[in-house]
Amino acid sequence: MDARNMHGVIPYIATPLDGEGRIDRPALTRLCEHLIDAGVHGLAPLGSTGEFAYLSRAQKAEVIETVVAATDGRVPVIAGVASTATDDAVSQARDWAARGADGILAVMEAYFPVPDEGVVAYFSAIAEATDRPVTLYTNPNFQRSDLSLAAIERLSRHPNIAYLKDASTNTGRLLSIMNRTEGRIGIFAASSHITVAVMLIGGLGWMAGPSCLIPRQSVRLYDLCRGGNWTEAMTLQRDLWAVNEAFAKYNLAAAIKAGLAIQGFDCGAPIAPQAALSASQIKELGDLLDRLESV
Amino acid sequence: MDARNMHGVIPYIATPLDGEGRIDRPALTRLCEHLIDAGVHGLAPLGSTGEFAYLSRAQKAEVIETVVAATDGRVPVIAGVASTATDDAVSQARDWAARGADGILAVMEAYFPVPDEGVVAYFSAIAEATDRPVTLYTNPNFQRSDLSLAAIERLSRHPNIAYLKDASTNTGRLLSIMNRTEGRIGIFAASSHITVAVMLIGGLGWMAGPSCLIPRQSVRLYDLCRGGNWTEAMTLQRDLWAVNEAFAKYNLAAAIKAGLAIQGFDCGAPIAPQAALSASQIKELGDLLDRLESV
Amino acid sequence: MDARNMHGVIPYIATPLDGEGRIDRPALTRLCEHLIDAGVHGLAPLGSTGEFAYLSRAQKAEVIETVVAATDGRVPVIAGVASTATDDAVSQARDWAARGADGILAVMEAYFPVPDEGVVAYFSAIAEATDRPVTLYTNPNFQRSDLSLAAIERLSRHPNIAYLKDASTNTGRLLSIMNRTEGRIGIFAASSHITVAVMLIGGLGWMAGPSCLIPRQSVRLYDLCRGGNWTEAMTLQRDLWAVNEAFAKYNLAAAIKAGLAIQGFDCGAPIAPQAALSASQIKELGDLLDRLESV
Amino acid sequence: MDARNMHGVIPYIATPLDGEGRIDRPALTRLCEHLIDAGVHGLAPLGSTGEFAYLSRAQKAEVIETVVAATDGRVPVIAGVASTATDDAVSQARDWAARGADGILAVMEAYFPVPDEGVVAYFSAIAEATDRPVTLYTNPNFQRSDLSLAAIERLSRHPNIAYLKDASTNTGRLLSIMNRTEGRIGIFAASSHITVAVMLIGGLGWMAGPSCLIPRQSVRLYDLCRGGNWTEAMTLQRDLWAVNEAFAKYNLAAAIKAGLAIQGFDCGAPIAPQAALSASQIKELGDLLDRLESV
Repeated sequence: MDARNMHGVIPYIATPLDGEGRIDRPALTRLCEHLIDAGVHGLAPLGSTGEFAYLSRAQKAEVIETVVAATDGRVPVIAGVASTATDDAVSQARDWAARGADGILAVMEAYFPVPDEGVVAYFSAIAEATDRPVTLYTNPNFQRSDLSLAAIERLSRHPNIAYLKDASTNTGRLLSIMNRTEGRIGIFAASSHITVAVMLIGGLGWMAGPSCLIPRQSVRLYDLCRGGNWTEAMTLQRDLWAVNEAFAKYNLAAAIKAGLAIQGFDCGAPIAPQAALSASQIKELGDLLDRLESV
Repeated sequence: MDARNMHGVIPYIATPLDGEGRIDRPALTRLCEHLIDAGVHGLAPLGSTGEFAYLSRAQKAEVIETVVAATDGRVPVIAGVASTATDDAVSQARDWAARGADGILAVMEAYFPVPDEGVVAYFSAIAEATDRPVTLYTNPNFQRSDLSLAAIERLSRHPNIAYLKDASTNTGRLLSIMNRTEGRIGIFAASSHITVAVMLIGGLGWMAGPSCLIPRQSVRLYDLCRGGNWTEAMTLQRDLWAVNEAFAKYNLAAAIKAGLAIQGFDCGAPIAPQAALSASQIKELGDLLDRLESV
Repeated sequence: MDARNMHGVIPYIATPLDGEGRIDRPALTRLCEHLIDAGVHGLAPLGSTGEFAYLSRAQKAEVIETVVAATDGRVPVIAGVASTATDDAVSQARDWAARGADGILAVMEAYFPVPDEGVVAYFSAIAEATDRPVTLYTNPNFQRSDLSLAAIERLSRHPNIAYLKDASTNTGRLLSIMNRTEGRIGIFAASSHITVAVMLIGGLGWMAGPSCLIPRQSVRLYDLCRGGNWTEAMTLQRDLWAVNEAFAKYNLAAAIKAGLAIQGFDCGAPIAPQAALSASQIKELGDLLDRLESV
Repeated sequence: MDARNMHGVIPYIATPLDGEGRIDRPALTRLCEHLIDAGVHGLAPLGSTGEFAYLSRAQKAEVIETVVAATDGRVPVIAGVASTATDDAVSQARDWAARGADGILAVMEAYFPVPDEGVVAYFSAIAEATDRPVTLYTNPNFQRSDLSLAAIERLSRHPNIAYLKDASTNTGRLLSIMNRTEGRIGIFAASSHITVAVMLIGGLGWMAGPSCLIPRQSVRLYDLCRGGNWTEAMTLQRDLWAVNEAFAKYNLAAAIKAGLAIQGFDCGAPIAPQAALSASQIKELGDLLDRLESV
């Protein structure tokens, strides 16, 4: 599978840091290996789950480099680009592509509100910065900007904008986007959506943090959906949904890092002032992951 | 089908008014007849679509009376109760039950914020007011209150609270509610959700305004879902979704009344200061309904 | 002072109810007497503090009747009109005028959003319903509608719209309104504003719930402002601000009724599902009122 | 005046950039010279107006260096520190202090929500990073975090946290903060508040973008307030308020840069995707500045 023909389960990967705040490259490499072994269809470093909003430019570059090396072409690497400023975003996109990223996940940060014209200009500039396919990423819960349907429609006509990943909780909006963009861009779910529902309405898969913790089960869920086994898929989905709920309830970076530590992948603490989960929260998450081992 | 075992397509019916603001009973009767002929499984007067928030108590009573008479027991009538004050809501519930309503759709209006304790007390009081099963109705877009998951969990244990209809846009929340309430209450979709997706995750049907305009097509969609024909259902859903989009885009009462007028059911104007659709909006809606005639 | 030339301290009065939910007319009469004795410049029944959003039409009529009788022309009575529907608001305005109200305080409730055109139409209809001067009342915290600057500018040209009372927390907006309406309407503060600040920028006074509990001190504050004794006024304001904070912290109806009970004016409980203050909250409020006795 | 005893008019200064996006040091130097000549009491680089949210770390360092050199100790330089991550903020604070900043203006950016504990930890870490006095800066309109009253109260006890500048529109909140912190921290207004009102309630002055465009008039306004000439101050304030309205209406960076260009200080365009003002907006702003020349 190449980045022009993506589908399936693409985990947002956590960013392991050591006690001094340096990227823990061995831990990140092991995590990539583990996820690819579990059958995931791609890897997405520098998403929300990967704490992109808390890392320096140098740290981000190291993450991309590490993930590209660990992946070694086995699955596409979709690298997160996020900025308030167009030029900075373009520079990130070129840098990540030069370091071997197969695709770009593009986020627009905002301080002052930006009208549609500026939003379209920002994402178009990223699309033109490299020859890698771009995934639009919209997360109205945490970003101060949102992509209007009209802006998405315009952007979907750009030959280098290939996908959209929506992290709102509004599943119906995805169907509106699909109807408006008529197959020009592919849609991925986020952990705020029921992935089976998004697959049913025509989604290609999902880019999401929870798949870091339940990669094997996520791939099975995807296969059930692709095979049209909707009833069996929903039975599995009902169990797995508890992980999505945990990610919505806790700080996302704290949740993923706690879960990975439980599974033997120590990623350090979330970047301060974010706090790690408490002992009782870790216990709760551990029990949940135990239960899901057997599904 | 009785109100204790409800499922399927339950349109929120518009409230026809004459030029003097009186309930147009003959028009309302014809509308009920038309919807039952089209195969709907219940009727829900005094929902958002029925302009409950704009009608006087006397007008509301007349609506219930008219719908009960027109329906004549053929399908359950689920009557809307809405207030800021507990006593007033209880009095409405008793009145609607005395006039023959089969079930109660309970809305909590709020001016000042109400903590969970008060929310639970409000809905419990309605549930105890009559022996009719109660549907909790939550619409965070237009109401100033919302039902927390914890409040829903508590309310789901009340023997007389049987259903929940959610008009948020957050489909994942419905799955969380289902998982938490473990079959104690049945879930209906609203027009803000993709009905096929809600059926897939275990919903019983939908209570929604659009089904007033496309009752026959809605019933076919429901039958496809019940039969597990998900692919065919999604093909139909994709076409019908445009009606949901129109309801989200326009004032809901204006949209339903314009659509019904196009179909020969003159319901008068929406209650001022709400405005009727413009000529070009009516044209757009008419074209849409034409297209959907043949699906 | 007549309603065409209003200024000063105009308390929103609480609505006393007996255990059966009936208007407690003797208590309301005593409260009016007490406030007029303390020197207030007008009385405003059926404001937010007066639980207008929780009362039936018949209860509201009784409130107006009682306050008009108790006041007996000594100060203007500004009666609250609030509805989602234009016709209902017009009918209330006529009814209150017929029962002797000197002015109308006009609130627009909304369920579905209303564009500016409808907002202007709603308030204009109230202004034309009677010959009593109208005060526009905007409370973006609790109402689902807000008056845009453009709408206020248009409404300020109506000969019967004389005042505006703003319950946002945005004091700068009041200066923008004053600059735009150039003296055509007079501005009153709400308890969300620092009254001394609003007097400084050119306000006429305030319509507010806290003045029910500290009427004498409020009148003194007003007199200090009118006399240009800003420093002394601020010393008093700093003390009195704690009452505004209490009203913002608690349910407003619960706070006013608890405070009045402490002062010997038993008004019953706030209308359910609103809850009364707890014992410790009552204690806290009592201590505050004690401290303010001597200022 | 030193940074431990600050008061008066402290403009947020714009960040001039050349066509290649490099800091225009000569333009920035001239702007500082101009503002000090006009009598301002301090300079605040890297505020919202200075586009801190759009600049790289290297650009920010260059801004601080330039402003410190241009100021040459004549007035205090209050340098903006803003980050999502505690360590990064601490590193900025140390860097700015090493480059000669007299005080720190501390902003907390957030992606995921941060509870009070984390907010207090973040600002405390900045306060401990250097010996320069810290100004807490809260701007709920554009930041995804806000400082609760309880967090402010705790932070006000830190010996190195000396001031707070609030950019909400809620003037009453400032009085609550003053009452709670009892003189431990000094309060500055932002352009969202009426500066005269904030002076009346006990403010020390203001840190605001508009003062870049009307420095002389701002200093006169401050002197009138300090002299207790409230009536004359309000006459001037009423005229100057139009600049605050312009800043609220337009993109702030676009407004300040357009205004400075009109006055002969070319600062380049706002950083993309922010757009410059249109020709008609520039005309409107120019007319306003002309009118204010003579006040």
